[in-house]
Amino acid sequence: MKPVYLNNAATSWPKKGQVGGTVAAYIDGLPCHAGRSGFSGWDVTGQCRGLLAGLLQVKNPNQIVLCSNATYALNIALHGIHWQSGAAVVTTAAEHNSVLRPLHYLSKTKGISIHEVSVDRMGRVILDEWEAAIQQFKPQLVVFTHASNVTGAVNDAARLGEIAKQAGAITLLDASQSLGIIPVLPEVWGFDMVAFTGHKYLLGPTGTGGLYIAPGLDLEPVWVGGTGIQSDLDEMPPDMPSRFEAGTPNDPAFAGLAAAVTWANDHGLDSTELQSKIERLAAGLAAAGADVIFVAPPRTPVVSFTLRDWDVGDVGEVLHKSFGIICRTGLHCAPRIHSYLGSYPAGTVRFSLSRFTTYEEIDYCLRAVGEMMHETG
Amino acid sequence: MKPVYLNNAATSWPKKGQVGGTVAAYIDGLPCHAGRSGFSGWDVTGQCRGLLAGLLQVKNPNQIVLCSNATYALNIALHGIHWQSGAAVVTTAAEHNSVLRPLHYLSKTKGISIHEVSVDRMGRVILDEWEAAIQQFKPQLVVFTHASNVTGAVNDAARLGEIAKQAGAITLLDASQSLGIIPVLPEVWGFDMVAFTGHKYLLGPTGTGGLYIAPGLDLEPVWVGGTGIQSDLDEMPPDMPSRFEAGTPNDPAFAGLAAAVTWANDHGLDSTELQSKIERLAAGLAAAGADVIFVAPPRTPVVSFTLRDWDVGDVGEVLHKSFGIICRTGLHCAPRIHSYLGSYPAGTVRFSLSRFTTYEEIDYCLRAVGEMMHETG
Repeated sequence: MKPVYLNNAATSWPKKGQVGGTVAAYIDGLPCHAGRSGFSGWDVTGQCRGLLAGLLQVKNPNQIVLCSNATYALNIALHGIHWQSGAAVVTTAAEHNSVLRPLHYLSKTKGISIHEVSVDRMGRVILDEWEAAIQQFKPQLVVFTHASNVTGAVNDAARLGEIAKQAGAITLLDASQSLGIIPVLPEVWGFDMVAFTGHKYLLGPTGTGGLYIAPGLDLEPVWVGGTGIQSDLDEMPPDMPSRFEAGTPNDPAFAGLAAAVTWANDHGLDSTELQSKIERLAAGLAAAGADVIFVAPPRTPVVSFTLRDWDVGDVGEVLHKSFGIICRTGLHCAPRIHSYLGSYPAGTVRFSLSRFTTYEEIDYCLRAVGEMMHETG
Repeated sequence: MKPVYLNNAATSWPKKGQVGGTVAAYIDGLPCHAGRSGFSGWDVTGQCRGLLAGLLQVKNPNQIVLCSNATYALNIALHGIHWQSGAAVVTTAAEHNSVLRPLHYLSKTKGISIHEVSVDRMGRVILDEWEAAIQQFKPQLVVFTHASNVTGAVNDAARLGEIAKQAGAITLLDASQSLGIIPVLPEVWGFDMVAFTGHKYLLGPTGTGGLYIAPGLDLEPVWVGGTGIQSDLDEMPPDMPSRFEAGTPNDPAFAGLAAAVTWANDHGLDSTELQSKIERLAAGLAAAGADVIFVAPPRTPVVSFTLRDWDVGDVGEVLHKSFGIICRTGLHCAPRIHSYLGSYPAGTVRFSLSRFTTYEEIDYCLRAVGEMMHETG
């Protein structure tokens, strides 16, 4: 049974752009991290940074900090802010634990207050509430996800960011679920910070992520260590990106990410095709009798559903064991949104596609779900 | 010109145990992180943890947190302590910036005081001073490196730890420069925490490191996020190792590390041979006219030196360009030790071997240094 992989919102598969081979070649080859070993070789982090800057339309690649994943990037951002006494944060019900848990930690240690804006039944942030919350709480920071990892609903990041910026807030966008399939434009949209990962829709390897930091933003490095330069300083060097890149960089992984971004640049974003595929899947699931969380475009290639009389965990297990379909079930590390979707505490079954998912695979999954509904029907 | 790689204390090369191929195979294969995608596959982090527990003689593998490098591990440890008001830390002059910079950050934010114990001319911690500092300052924490990354001097970790433990301190050992070539035994020696890296003498890939945490130690997770389990909690789950492993784990890299540790277990530690090689290199450098920092055994395969009338950076460049020898020059991210060695602020030229360095390569390097001395002689 050939597996059907529908867990791309967790980590994408297959990877592209010769990712595996590039990583292996880098591991097998002579190490040559620029600035760290007394000779200049293949400046792989510089190359990767440059490619990402192109994709993000960021003018100076050095404003992009490379790190091990989006969680790390979000922690750099959230811990690094010079929190004012009594600071407020406005965020949304759609956030991942990579945002919620650092905020909760900061509420305990720095006394920040957290204000959560509702989402609609699709999982999209309600604009009026967003505006009202920003007016009411005058947040030092707003942080929100570009797209829900549970429903695929895409927020109007530019508009939400602009409203917050006009009210004087620092703006932080979590682009983990969007970069690689829809445009993410930190400087065009005027964001202070944008966190992203390399191993989801960018089709790169795990162990890669990054944080765009706008020039002039006053952010303190918290996770600190050696930088290979200016080693006599007690603190991290002032220059970007070294200021936030402590420890030996994972060059082979960034070589892999560079290969993936190169591939993406050559092939473009695939949103029309993906849009069509995810709509066929969502419509087919509903036709098969599933309770589907419908989402109007724009959306990412994610759909959540439940099956009447079925435990969501059991659905995942039967799909895997009887049909070879790999998906994900439960809360998807985003516990708050499920209250708005009616799926708390059990969560949902989530199918997430990539640009390599075929229509044949989609139809196979629909037949599988149809059979499962028939069994209980 | 075939390169001679003498920068193994920064990152080792070549890697072993099919590291590159294993990482690539994992990237190319279906993702299957246990507990995160609704089906159980190859539990690679569990496998890697088990192998590391064997190497470290740690009873419960779940006491080993896997992370992206030793810097990350040290930051987990140092930021995670519940610092008492007015707490003191005793550390040593031989520390790397991955220890010094977090301590400096904590001195600013938590008001801890830092007390640095001297090292001798070899870079080894002076035992009497260590005892005296612990008696005088009654530290909440002691943190020290097992071996100097500048001179290769190995501290008696068991003894230093025991003295601190008897005085009631939390003990943290930085084993970045030792694990893989000399025994590191957290539980036998009674340490509270031991930080290590996978990409130096363990011969694994970059992007891998870990922190051993003794059962019962009260440590707070600071860098937090999704864990794929217990997603409804505001805080990190209480269980080890999830409590300190936020974000998507870098499974391919840990597959590579598992391959490397398997290889090391099969082949044993190579200390006698390495000891003989590094002594030949050190003696030969002195005979060629270099000013060598001599170190009595036990030592790691590292030697630091300077050449009269030569700038250390120039030595590295000529060695690389004219002789194909790759080493490292400068402060080596360990700025404090150089005052004790007489090499501040310029630093040293450092040669660091691995078990794959040959006697032929050593003799070639000695001829190269001899020629350089002759040029200026």
